[in-house]
Amino acid sequence: MKFHGYFRSSASYRLRIALALKNIPHEQASVHLSRGGGEQFAPAFRKLNPQMLVPVVEDDGQVLTQSLAILEYLDEKWPTPPILPKTPAERARVRALALVMACEMHPLNNLRVLNYLTKDLGLSEEAKLTWYRHWIALGFQALEGMLADHPETGRFCHGDTPTIADICLVPQVFNAKRFDCPMQGYPTVMRIYEGCEKLPAFAGAHPSRQPDAE
Amino acid sequence: MKFHGYFRSSASYRLRIALALKNIPHEQASVHLSRGGGEQFAPAFRKLNPQMLVPVVEDDGQVLTQSLAILEYLDEKWPTPPILPKTPAERARVRALALVMACEMHPLNNLRVLNYLTKDLGLSEEAKLTWYRHWIALGFQALEGMLADHPETGRFCHGDTPTIADICLVPQVFNAKRFDCPMQGYPTVMRIYEGCEKLPAFAGAHPSRQPDAE
Repeated sequence: MKFHGYFRSSASYRLRIALALKNIPHEQASVHLSRGGGEQFAPAFRKLNPQMLVPVVEDDGQVLTQSLAILEYLDEKWPTPPILPKTPAERARVRALALVMACEMHPLNNLRVLNYLTKDLGLSEEAKLTWYRHWIALGFQALEGMLADHPETGRFCHGDTPTIADICLVPQVFNAKRFDCPMQGYPTVMRIYEGCEKLPAFAGAHPSRQPDAE
Repeated sequence: MKFHGYFRSSASYRLRIALALKNIPHEQASVHLSRGGGEQFAPAFRKLNPQMLVPVVEDDGQVLTQSLAILEYLDEKWPTPPILPKTPAERARVRALALVMACEMHPLNNLRVLNYLTKDLGLSEEAKLTWYRHWIALGFQALEGMLADHPETGRFCHGDTPTIADICLVPQVFNAKRFDCPMQGYPTVMRIYEGCEKLPAFAGAHPSRQPDAE
């Protein structure tokens, strides 16, 4: 397996956590998202992934894209330890938590969107940060509402073992902290974040600990 | 099963298609996203879904949110006909196609984001449309690249039966057409769209055919 990612990409960070939790052997290739105008736009990479986004995983001659699709693939091919619960209802809860981050928060705040705001729309740095923090606050408010006092929330988002919800949560909190978003309003989110950070799979996947970190 | 949606919401449209394909009995409740400032912000609905978004499905005492999580749930509980293929690699391809729309296109162009652009950032109608069409074009270029000439693309996005990729594609194309986005550059996307529209499950889920249509 070959894993193409970038140290600071949230979606790559998700996969690093899952690969470590499941102890899946792989080699890493770094795709620098800004050097030389962005290595993801190079013809060879574009051929690999027409979306021009990381992460990409090559496994068994198949090219896999979109981090949530890859997480499901890893769980189906390497089921131990599982990163999704067993029953349809529980799986739906965990996937919904992950999708709040993957669909409502991260897409509005990734590099290409922030670039569009400042370069194409001419927004100030301050207006860009206000945008960023607006969607982060809305998302974490929703997540806190879904997690706090829910009977199935445990040490992690769902029960006492990590799932794809936690795998999305840690990079999202890391990202929010990088942009100095206030986090006091989300005690359950932060409790789970801090619990995850104590596990070697999460700690080792941190952007600062990657070979391509700057 | 009770399905809370809105005729024009793309994510509700996805679920209507899946419920029809699988012939799952349900009652519908309409949540008007702009009347009275938006019925999704009413306390009772917020209690049901702290995300204040549609669709929401209530089934067996469980509240389900996030359309892709609900599609997976429906497929696990009502497996016939399947809306995901069988092997992990094929499932990963179908999920990735769906996620291009669910993560890279729709989140940038939904109602609350467009409202932020015009109301909070003071963008003109023209600048808003340029934003809309920019992300639509980027997404459909990626999708066309993933679908055209791919050996597994068939009558539908993957093979000859509809999957969650087609279930996301039809509402996304409908939405793009509503905003007059040029679609000539995506012949495979449009061929699949037109094929889907011939099936009663897709045709009957069209926004104009819903009881709450305006």
